[in-house]
Amino acid sequence: MLHIKGGTIVTAERSFRSDILCDDSGRIARIAPQIETPTGCEVVDAGGLLVMPGGIDPHTHMEMPFMGSVASDDFYTGTAAGLAGGTTSIIDFVIPESGGSLLDAWKAWRQKAEKAAADYAFHVAVTHWDDQVHADMGTLVNECGVSSFKHFMAYKNALMVDDGVLLHSIRRAGKLGALCTVHAENGDAVAYMQAKLLAEGRTGPDAHPLSRPPTVEGEAAQRVIALAGLLDAPVYIVHVSTEEAANAIAAARMRGQRVYGEVLPQHLVFDESVYSNPDWLTAARYVMSPPFRPRHHQHALWAGLMSGQLQTTATDHCCFCAGQKENGRTNFTHIPNGTPGIEDRMSILWHHGVATGRLTAEEFVAITSSNTARIFNMFPRKGCIAEGADADLVLWDAQGSRTISTSTDHQNVDYNIYEGMTVTGVARRTISAGRLVWDDGDLRVTRGAGRYIPRAPLGRKLAV
Amino acid sequence: MLHIKGGTIVTAERSFRSDILCDDSGRIARIAPQIETPTGCEVVDAGGLLVMPGGIDPHTHMEMPFMGSVASDDFYTGTAAGLAGGTTSIIDFVIPESGGSLLDAWKAWRQKAEKAAADYAFHVAVTHWDDQVHADMGTLVNECGVSSFKHFMAYKNALMVDDGVLLHSIRRAGKLGALCTVHAENGDAVAYMQAKLLAEGRTGPDAHPLSRPPTVEGEAAQRVIALAGLLDAPVYIVHVSTEEAANAIAAARMRGQRVYGEVLPQHLVFDESVYSNPDWLTAARYVMSPPFRPRHHQHALWAGLMSGQLQTTATDHCCFCAGQKENGRTNFTHIPNGTPGIEDRMSILWHHGVATGRLTAEEFVAITSSNTARIFNMFPRKGCIAEGADADLVLWDAQGSRTISTSTDHQNVDYNIYEGMTVTGVARRTISAGRLVWDDGDLRVTRGAGRYIPRAPLGRKLAV
Amino acid sequence: MLHIKGGTIVTAERSFRSDILCDDSGRIARIAPQIETPTGCEVVDAGGLLVMPGGIDPHTHMEMPFMGSVASDDFYTGTAAGLAGGTTSIIDFVIPESGGSLLDAWKAWRQKAEKAAADYAFHVAVTHWDDQVHADMGTLVNECGVSSFKHFMAYKNALMVDDGVLLHSIRRAGKLGALCTVHAENGDAVAYMQAKLLAEGRTGPDAHPLSRPPTVEGEAAQRVIALAGLLDAPVYIVHVSTEEAANAIAAARMRGQRVYGEVLPQHLVFDESVYSNPDWLTAARYVMSPPFRPRHHQHALWAGLMSGQLQTTATDHCCFCAGQKENGRTNFTHIPNGTPGIEDRMSILWHHGVATGRLTAEEFVAITSSNTARIFNMFPRKGCIAEGADADLVLWDAQGSRTISTSTDHQNVDYNIYEGMTVTGVARRTISAGRLVWDDGDLRVTRGAGRYIPRAPLGRKLAV
Amino acid sequence: MLHIKGGTIVTAERSFRSDILCDDSGRIARIAPQIETPTGCEVVDAGGLLVMPGGIDPHTHMEMPFMGSVASDDFYTGTAAGLAGGTTSIIDFVIPESGGSLLDAWKAWRQKAEKAAADYAFHVAVTHWDDQVHADMGTLVNECGVSSFKHFMAYKNALMVDDGVLLHSIRRAGKLGALCTVHAENGDAVAYMQAKLLAEGRTGPDAHPLSRPPTVEGEAAQRVIALAGLLDAPVYIVHVSTEEAANAIAAARMRGQRVYGEVLPQHLVFDESVYSNPDWLTAARYVMSPPFRPRHHQHALWAGLMSGQLQTTATDHCCFCAGQKENGRTNFTHIPNGTPGIEDRMSILWHHGVATGRLTAEEFVAITSSNTARIFNMFPRKGCIAEGADADLVLWDAQGSRTISTSTDHQNVDYNIYEGMTVTGVARRTISAGRLVWDDGDLRVTRGAGRYIPRAPLGRKLAV
Ligand SMILES: [Zn+2]
Ligand SMILES: [Zn+2]
Ligand SMILES: [Zn+2]
Ligand SMILES: [Zn+2]
Ligand SMILES: [Zn+2]
Ligand SMILES: [Zn+2]
Ligand SMILES: [Zn+2]
Ligand SMILES: [Zn+2]
Repeated sequence: MLHIKGGTIVTAERSFRSDILCDDSGRIARIAPQIETPTGCEVVDAGGLLVMPGGIDPHTHMEMPFMGSVASDDFYTGTAAGLAGGTTSIIDFVIPESGGSLLDAWKAWRQKAEKAAADYAFHVAVTHWDDQVHADMGTLVNECGVSSFKHFMAYKNALMVDDGVLLHSIRRAGKLGALCTVHAENGDAVAYMQAKLLAEGRTGPDAHPLSRPPTVEGEAAQRVIALAGLLDAPVYIVHVSTEEAANAIAAARMRGQRVYGEVLPQHLVFDESVYSNPDWLTAARYVMSPPFRPRHHQHALWAGLMSGQLQTTATDHCCFCAGQKENGRTNFTHIPNGTPGIEDRMSILWHHGVATGRLTAEEFVAITSSNTARIFNMFPRKGCIAEGADADLVLWDAQGSRTISTSTDHQNVDYNIYEGMTVTGVARRTISAGRLVWDDGDLRVTRGAGRYIPRAPLGRKLAV
Repeated sequence: MLHIKGGTIVTAERSFRSDILCDDSGRIARIAPQIETPTGCEVVDAGGLLVMPGGIDPHTHMEMPFMGSVASDDFYTGTAAGLAGGTTSIIDFVIPESGGSLLDAWKAWRQKAEKAAADYAFHVAVTHWDDQVHADMGTLVNECGVSSFKHFMAYKNALMVDDGVLLHSIRRAGKLGALCTVHAENGDAVAYMQAKLLAEGRTGPDAHPLSRPPTVEGEAAQRVIALAGLLDAPVYIVHVSTEEAANAIAAARMRGQRVYGEVLPQHLVFDESVYSNPDWLTAARYVMSPPFRPRHHQHALWAGLMSGQLQTTATDHCCFCAGQKENGRTNFTHIPNGTPGIEDRMSILWHHGVATGRLTAEEFVAITSSNTARIFNMFPRKGCIAEGADADLVLWDAQGSRTISTSTDHQNVDYNIYEGMTVTGVARRTISAGRLVWDDGDLRVTRGAGRYIPRAPLGRKLAV
Repeated sequence: MLHIKGGTIVTAERSFRSDILCDDSGRIARIAPQIETPTGCEVVDAGGLLVMPGGIDPHTHMEMPFMGSVASDDFYTGTAAGLAGGTTSIIDFVIPESGGSLLDAWKAWRQKAEKAAADYAFHVAVTHWDDQVHADMGTLVNECGVSSFKHFMAYKNALMVDDGVLLHSIRRAGKLGALCTVHAENGDAVAYMQAKLLAEGRTGPDAHPLSRPPTVEGEAAQRVIALAGLLDAPVYIVHVSTEEAANAIAAARMRGQRVYGEVLPQHLVFDESVYSNPDWLTAARYVMSPPFRPRHHQHALWAGLMSGQLQTTATDHCCFCAGQKENGRTNFTHIPNGTPGIEDRMSILWHHGVATGRLTAEEFVAITSSNTARIFNMFPRKGCIAEGADADLVLWDAQGSRTISTSTDHQNVDYNIYEGMTVTGVARRTISAGRLVWDDGDLRVTRGAGRYIPRAPLGRKLAV
Repeated sequence: MLHIKGGTIVTAERSFRSDILCDDSGRIARIAPQIETPTGCEVVDAGGLLVMPGGIDPHTHMEMPFMGSVASDDFYTGTAAGLAGGTTSIIDFVIPESGGSLLDAWKAWRQKAEKAAADYAFHVAVTHWDDQVHADMGTLVNECGVSSFKHFMAYKNALMVDDGVLLHSIRRAGKLGALCTVHAENGDAVAYMQAKLLAEGRTGPDAHPLSRPPTVEGEAAQRVIALAGLLDAPVYIVHVSTEEAANAIAAARMRGQRVYGEVLPQHLVFDESVYSNPDWLTAARYVMSPPFRPRHHQHALWAGLMSGQLQTTATDHCCFCAGQKENGRTNFTHIPNGTPGIEDRMSILWHHGVATGRLTAEEFVAITSSNTARIFNMFPRKGCIAEGADADLVLWDAQGSRTISTSTDHQNVDYNIYEGMTVTGVARRTISAGRLVWDDGDLRVTRGAGRYIPRAPLGRKLAV
């Protein structure tokens, strides 16, 4: 049992002074202004702190095999780092082998994830279409607690699907009450631009953003929205990084379509100039897709979050160390795409979002946790502070500050993209399933403590 | 004390089975799955019903003097009718005489409202600008619990203000932390079109929509958004009725502006054909501004509510009986503008919004109550089901249906614009300040039971 | 020699009273207010008539093999019908066999076209990509007078190309100074919708518009504009039929892209209700792609032509007789797609465009002839009334009227989609290469009189 | 008589080698590839030069009384400077005194203009509304050759009109077949911002752009387009300087409205940084309204010209010398608004427009001359190279270059905003009414040689 005492609860709805009592089953047992500490109950001092739902990161790639490497943060180290930053749940991606079984892949990922320190769920990628995929989607939704699928419009000759596969999958998912998520970049265009740039001798990381300009994302977002619209089905676009895609989402919503968009904090704070760093490795470490953009796109992403037209934030956490990034030393298209960040998402968003006045604390909770829980049907178990909900909480020091560094963070990768950035807004304590797992610098995680969170189908159009 | 037993609580956040205990001070004392009924406590059976925050109607005109008449529903009859329909609070408009004191007008309205059966608050209209207005705004915000002001861009030579007044008032309000609301129609254009139509011999109600076409509203919305944007201040547009205005709001929000829009249910269900009714009085009864529109505008309004780009619903409840409407028998510009509707807003929105699958029950709560409470700073006292909140609740029968008629409604006016419409979704019981005031057909309101609800300034940019 | 006497010349620039003298080489020799008729010179009375550049139809499919049939109008009958309606040049499409040689196809089409009665040029379709296509494009541009290529984003498993092919071809064309034209519909989506509709038992022509809704065109237009934008190359979209596509073109132009759009008169006057005709054959005769649309799209097409954001008009003339349409009696996807119309384009556009006040006579010339000549680099030989230009002229009776009927038209097909329509604006006389070939009902065409018009590359961004 | 020999004629339509013979009445008598020089006829060598229609500047303010000063270039010096730069006609503005007679003002301006060296016409400003204005508009159109009127939405308490006046005037003009032109800035907002800035101690030229931000123009453009749309009348917006206004125009045109936009070269090449010049006078010299903008607006203006959504270019030529600019030394709102530029418009547009590849030479003619002549109904007398047209021509050296300087220009003002800029594209010779008035540095103008050009009403919707 845990008695969180003296804090100010902040939900997506409101803020109020209250204590919280967590029971031994890992749930919130009681919320009341003044709770008498039960005998034998541990007391966590929340004085001066905000008590918020733990962050949910709906886009991570722990130990993912990708581009000839395997992401260096595994389910244990990655979720542990998340807990240190106030993130108490992740939704990771099951990526079947080319032509392979979705179900087998899901089983394999379930196994890999058993070491997780925090709760987790899965999206499953659909990378081709046949009757088996159709059947597996049914099994995953009805028997395995999977209620969202992932599609790549990029990565030609690898994960990419064409519009026909998208249509089949969106319709199948719609019938199952599941949600389709999409990496929206035009893979044909990326492949074309990559070949063109390489042919021109552009082999360095500075060619990376040129190979996937904003139009490439805007076009794909527009397209998948059109396809989903044909089937009157909802769609969720991961890592929206451009004004074009943000506007396409907003326009679709104003036509009555249920479209959702996710933003990564790194797109809010970095711009494409990072790829011009004269140090190859430094530049290569920023290589992810979609790439960082000219600065004016950031304004559109913030406005999207402020207006509710973009609903969630995630990290696309995908770690590759120097040796892995080196694979692309002579050819930028071989640099493993990915950046770390699960530990710092909450701080970056608070610092740049709340401390600057763009967002309220309630909106911060919405975009880091509650909206995600709703859209992916983990609400009110997750993303909510209510009696009966999972006791996944972060005790937030709104005035505290810290300087981000790979030397002090817990991610299993040899750099931090935010290195040296001092941010206001710090996760002082994190409670996962009712247990204090992060106590102001002291990380007390347990390998395997994380639980698989099955998610039921939504069975209807989503609403956020 | 009141024990609401066996219902399903629905908030803007979530739905869950729970009992509610209301105390004698009119507040929610306890929320828990199973509550033991205290001795002597009245029990209200909520079995099979949804327990939702009572509706808040942020746009009513009780006993308003307007166009040579006085609206026939007064604060007592109007709020009573609201309670019969599940609406437990209103925000009415204080309209100072031309050049008159805002403060005196507020006092006069306070007095008129003492007879109210349900809680109420006030927006105060700014209809001219001088130092006294500047000073009165300060007094109203700091001492009188007024945190929103109203402006008319239409009604030339009466209530209309020019852009200079708008700028002064928006800035003053911004400094005070108050919110400006605006009736957005270009009054010069309306006056011009009215004169032109009359000169052409168009004197009947069918000329009304021609005198204020969609463009007239879209232009004004665009303009006030531009003005507010210059001052980096929020703005709230009442009775958005056109695609043009809805899109202007959405576009501004996607530029990062804090703009809000209100929708009236009548605009969602009627179109301009009502003005062509061969019976003069029938047509005249639909005369309100902005008028009903070509049908495609409705799609934009629904999409705005679905996507969160339009946040609230209201009625602009303003009742004129046959004798009053007759004032305009030979000249449509003399027909008192206004339609009743406070009693039916909730049913109309449930029937056309939730029962059709456009909105979830949680979204219904958001647009009928919670969003309004947030935007006008009555949250979490109103618009929220939580311990400590006002016990303003509606027990909703989602499957029940009723046929709307002036013969059975409680509005003090001789017609009902929804006459004969059968709707699914019925307010079975209404609880106001902890008292059961509507019990399935039995209206037990008390003259003067309503309280004035002072509203503090928001002191920052608003967030919804 | 021919002396056109007493007419009012109308060009895209201006109108003025003037005579014209055509020489024996088929060119305009002299333009002057009053010309003395040379001895032995035939005089054509243009009194009361407008003398305009002959129409150019940049989109015809004479004797095209398609969907198991061959279009019934061949190069002779089709061009003859055009002359009867005031159209003096066509640009037809060379469609190589799947995987086949562009050059061989061009040669085959050259041969088929030798029987033409009026001048003609060719676009050549690119339906796949390899080194031979790359090479052939060069040959066609540099040696064969082809300066535009065609691409189908629809017709999956037949003519459709993917985005990679589009990018390769657009870039290659750009380097050659040639223009890419595109049939913009998402072929994956069409194939998906067709299969879905057939599976639902929807086999009739009324399923045709459902299988390719407006979104399917809007998406493809948006996409090809994005791709062309990546390469900073111009692009021309054939048969724009939707508000979505028209707006995409206008938006791109307002970003500085050189994008052009073509409108078919049938999309301006018919709507999707034609497919609900209870008579199967009648409905089937309207089957073409993109299909006729809900009526509001027409407003966008007209506005596009009025504002210059859509530049040209064409017919997509492609004739299939009853027996051919019957191929799809039990399956709408087998109905040969195509409608006739080359003979009536000018009249339909005058009647609905000029007579209604939407367009001026000068704009009529621009959209029926001059803009097309400029964009496809036939100007000022074609599309222009100037000394030295080809004497391709139509003598237009702006007040005259006629009733369209297959019983009187000259198209080699057993129906006319405009059957029974009475139009104001009639081609009284047509002059082709200086010869009077249509004289108020008397068609005096010569098989093989038409000449191939080689077109040089533009070598720069186009301007209209 | 004048024989222009060996040049390449460029019109808005096409380019071709041809000689031109001008007769003694000042008109073009003959256009032919090779003309025999008549006896006694002066020969002008156009070898290697482009022969284009002389520029028309539809927006000048010669010797205008404004803000307590009188513009220093009078009709003689100003038109002479124009001729030196290739501009052969102007349309100046008649500005009646407050409440004064339009007709009297027109007469006064006619008198002032008698000294002009080049042809001129007038727009007449409508600055208030009453029956006399209504009557005067009729007289001006029917008897005085005025077919366009001007309206100021800015300059509160001076020239500004409200929306009611705009509606009356637009409708009256529409009935007369005349065109309304509008200075689109929200005058209430400007006055408000000016007062606010001054109150904050912002008295320097750097406050000028802050007092009229882009929104202020975008709003007004949107508004007047809405008003004109209500009346189904065309409208022309002068000096479009923002993306917002350009997009509003394009959007209206895509709805089918006839809206036109004018661009000033200075807005294409300067940005708001000029107002931060530490030298007060230098900064003050750039003070004009609308002010120079953040650089991204230029892209929208160019795209507007390229796509035909903005049709004309002008200078708003309005000269104030140092002593006059000094009036605003302690208060930026007293700096006379205006910049010179009539002499350099053509070169600036060629250099930045044609030499950069944005525009073709034909488009250059369209935007500097032909479109203006059409819109203001001077075509084909002006803006056209055709037999019978006025012999107003510029012989353009497309490869020549010159460095702009007040020390060599002919404008009667003590600075040149383009000082030191080297431009490619030079007016080598200018012919005005058949007379060689500028011969490669030699200015041979005649005081009073300019003629008043009466312009008939258009009598219909305009088309460009
Ligand atoms: Zn991705
Ligand atoms: Zn990812
Ligand atoms: Zn109102
Ligand atoms: Zn109202
Ligand atoms: Zn086609
Ligand atoms: Zn075709
Ligand atoms: Zn101006
Ligand atoms: Zn001016």
